[in-house]
Amino acid sequence: MSLSKNIAEPSQTRVDMVMGAVRRQIAGQHSQPGARLTSIRAMAERLGVSKSTVVEAYDRLVAEGAITSRPGAGFFASGHLPPLSLAPVDPSAHRDVDPVWMTRRALNHDASLMKPGCGWLPASWMPGDDIARALRRLAREGDGHLVDYASPHGLAPLRQLLARRLADRGIEAPPQHIMITESGTQAVDLLCRFLLKPGDTVLLDDPCYFNFHALMRAHRVNVVSVPYTPNGPDLTQLEHVLGAHRVRLYITNSALHNPTGATLSPVVAHRVLKLAEAHDVLIIEDDIFADFEQEPAPRLAAFDGLDRVIHVGSFSKTLSAAVRCGFIAARSDWIEELVDLKLATSFGGGAFSSDLVFRLLTDGAYRRHMSSVRTRLADAMGKVIRQLHTIGIEPVLEPKGGMFLWCKLPGGLDAAQVARNAFARSVVLAPGQAFSLREEACTFLRFNVAQTLDPTILPAVERAMLQAHPE
Amino acid sequence: MSLSKNIAEPSQTRVDMVMGAVRRQIAGQHSQPGARLTSIRAMAERLGVSKSTVVEAYDRLVAEGAITSRPGAGFFASGHLPPLSLAPVDPSAHRDVDPVWMTRRALNHDASLMKPGCGWLPASWMPGDDIARALRRLAREGDGHLVDYASPHGLAPLRQLLARRLADRGIEAPPQHIMITESGTQAVDLLCRFLLKPGDTVLLDDPCYFNFHALMRAHRVNVVSVPYTPNGPDLTQLEHVLGAHRVRLYITNSALHNPTGATLSPVVAHRVLKLAEAHDVLIIEDDIFADFEQEPAPRLAAFDGLDRVIHVGSFSKTLSAAVRCGFIAARSDWIEELVDLKLATSFGGGAFSSDLVFRLLTDGAYRRHMSSVRTRLADAMGKVIRQLHTIGIEPVLEPKGGMFLWCKLPGGLDAAQVARNAFARSVVLAPGQAFSLREEACTFLRFNVAQTLDPTILPAVERAMLQAHPE
Repeated sequence: MSLSKNIAEPSQTRVDMVMGAVRRQIAGQHSQPGARLTSIRAMAERLGVSKSTVVEAYDRLVAEGAITSRPGAGFFASGHLPPLSLAPVDPSAHRDVDPVWMTRRALNHDASLMKPGCGWLPASWMPGDDIARALRRLAREGDGHLVDYASPHGLAPLRQLLARRLADRGIEAPPQHIMITESGTQAVDLLCRFLLKPGDTVLLDDPCYFNFHALMRAHRVNVVSVPYTPNGPDLTQLEHVLGAHRVRLYITNSALHNPTGATLSPVVAHRVLKLAEAHDVLIIEDDIFADFEQEPAPRLAAFDGLDRVIHVGSFSKTLSAAVRCGFIAARSDWIEELVDLKLATSFGGGAFSSDLVFRLLTDGAYRRHMSSVRTRLADAMGKVIRQLHTIGIEPVLEPKGGMFLWCKLPGGLDAAQVARNAFARSVVLAPGQAFSLREEACTFLRFNVAQTLDPTILPAVERAMLQAHPE
Repeated sequence: MSLSKNIAEPSQTRVDMVMGAVRRQIAGQHSQPGARLTSIRAMAERLGVSKSTVVEAYDRLVAEGAITSRPGAGFFASGHLPPLSLAPVDPSAHRDVDPVWMTRRALNHDASLMKPGCGWLPASWMPGDDIARALRRLAREGDGHLVDYASPHGLAPLRQLLARRLADRGIEAPPQHIMITESGTQAVDLLCRFLLKPGDTVLLDDPCYFNFHALMRAHRVNVVSVPYTPNGPDLTQLEHVLGAHRVRLYITNSALHNPTGATLSPVVAHRVLKLAEAHDVLIIEDDIFADFEQEPAPRLAAFDGLDRVIHVGSFSKTLSAAVRCGFIAARSDWIEELVDLKLATSFGGGAFSSDLVFRLLTDGAYRRHMSSVRTRLADAMGKVIRQLHTIGIEPVLEPKGGMFLWCKLPGGLDAAQVARNAFARSVVLAPGQAFSLREEACTFLRFNVAQTLDPTILPAVERAMLQAHPE
């Protein structure tokens, strides 16, 4: 009596104890999914607690989704974890602006949106006429390529062409070391599936391409990061991180680093590879901005010879994001395993886009297009740097090429707040919170100079900044 | 002395002991990846064994890839598991013919190959002219769709059209319950990433589409299976398997099951859903052959109302495998999570293929094309059944439509051996070993009737069978 009396109001600890007992019952395979749980009365007797304690525990477990209640029938083990979610780890007001927030807005097709924060060129800068011409030729000659699956490794002539283009950058990758993918993102994702298992530790640059953070969550791996300097990763920090963590993989850009626009120096490249060897770390070199370079920077894959470095490229930024085509250059024994993994998970994609890309690369249109893009970007870069200066926004460095400026906001403004305010004015910005997990990054924005030329954009950004000022 | 003497020839157990000690040293985080291991001399002293024992243990560990040897420098922990491989679990002569073998050969672009074993229609049966016409229109009008990324959920008008088409099959899935993917395979793969974690148990039909087995290996999950009958899964077996295993997910086809061509009956559909509910099992209904049906069969998604059933479709089999486009219909809260997962892992694909598919579905070409395909397939089905009969091959059932015949070989012939012999004659067959892990399946072949009309194919198959007869 006295016992039941002094636990009349269920205490936190007793409820927790009951919840723990039920969780163990479920986890310990003692109950099949859908199996009925011990009744409230029996559980109360078994654990010597009041029924109200058990009721509160069961109610909380139902709310958690660990068990389900069927009116009149009792409580049942749902027996499964909830599905994978990429929702923000820390959904505080400060962190709701994250890689998912960024991607959803950048890909929003609302024509009224302006996107100085997105990661690609305006449609008007892309070779639409060349693509249309290639489409008409494909319509005439394409036959099989209009309806067939791609071959396992991908279009052979395209792989031969890519081998020659990589050789021009000092990367020795004969066609049997190259696999075609549906995009650069799919290439990195396949490599993560190939090289990682849940719980592994991956090293990212800080800041880095925001989607890498979402991709790592999708692979259930731990992320550590190293600050990125104007010459590449901070070597002291890199050595420290590799010493402190069991890092399996490092994902980075060598040339025109996203978002900083920095470029790896030969010396840093050499040291990074030495450290990677000493700590048995593999490296994915994501090089999708290669053709935006004015003069070629060193590539880790060239220094390393595709031993522990895997090289990834794509044409989404240079030709078309609508016609998906990327590639992986790696050890040939790994390429064979990657082909099997690609076939198992996507059946290898279609023959169409690689045929289209091959035609565009070989008819001279691509070279002309990219040389004019590089010139236009250099102009836009100068213009936008000057205009940003007038509203107090300064890039941390002036990149040698490409479309990105990594900029610090004045007066310690919170980039997420500025981005929220700007989005209310139909302007999609790229706040530092999406690119980095560190506090410092929260006052940075990434600008795409090709998408920032519209004269109404920076005034809107300025108003968004004023709005974000603490009163 | 005597000790070191009587272990002069290293004994199995001592070598194993040393290997175990080194493995523990590595696994126990005591040594960072790349860290030097205890020297041979020191290890021999520590464990009181001869140096030759330690040398043999280290050599074996090097062969395993657990440690690496650097000449002159000693031995080092490699510290990582080897990458994921889809290579056959049991690479015996009998099992070398597996899903990977099947896929590699079916996708081989060597024009001299005949492919009665492949899973798609001949290019000549596909609507090449309609696609070419749609391409020319896209070249004229496509503008943004030639260069843009797709929107997060995928082309809105296509999702509206799919909602109407699903409603015709009794599946209530408004556009916000639909996400466009790059293919049916990518759709199932995304759902597995969303719903499964390594070590989960997945239920497959036996036999089932061979690539599901490869896909499950890629997800590191356990597979259990239930025999497929002419009316759907064997209910007694299903109840037994769900009782014996903690099954998370069941992947199946409802109409024109691959490879048997069987079709789910309404009663079996009801019972399957009841059992799934009782055991809290989710279901992926892969319905990519829907438009090959002569009259509509019941769909699990229609009975269930997208509660625990997720519906998947694609146009790779009906329009073009070169222009990739599939979709997922599911609970709208899950669609939102799946959109994030798709963006993280593929950045959502391109706007091009869904635009092309939408144009083909709406200009009437698709309806005309599919009605003529259904007629041609019905003809081919009759012809091929008669021709197979003349060489002693009999289908287990005559499907109501589609392209597949699941056939038993005469005299207990081994399908893998017949397939190897036929491949030497440039004929790609689909042996039971790729579709099932059970012994019985090893005497079955799947025939694609549309790909079996060439008069030289069955004579070649007959010779491959004769060759496979035990002397």
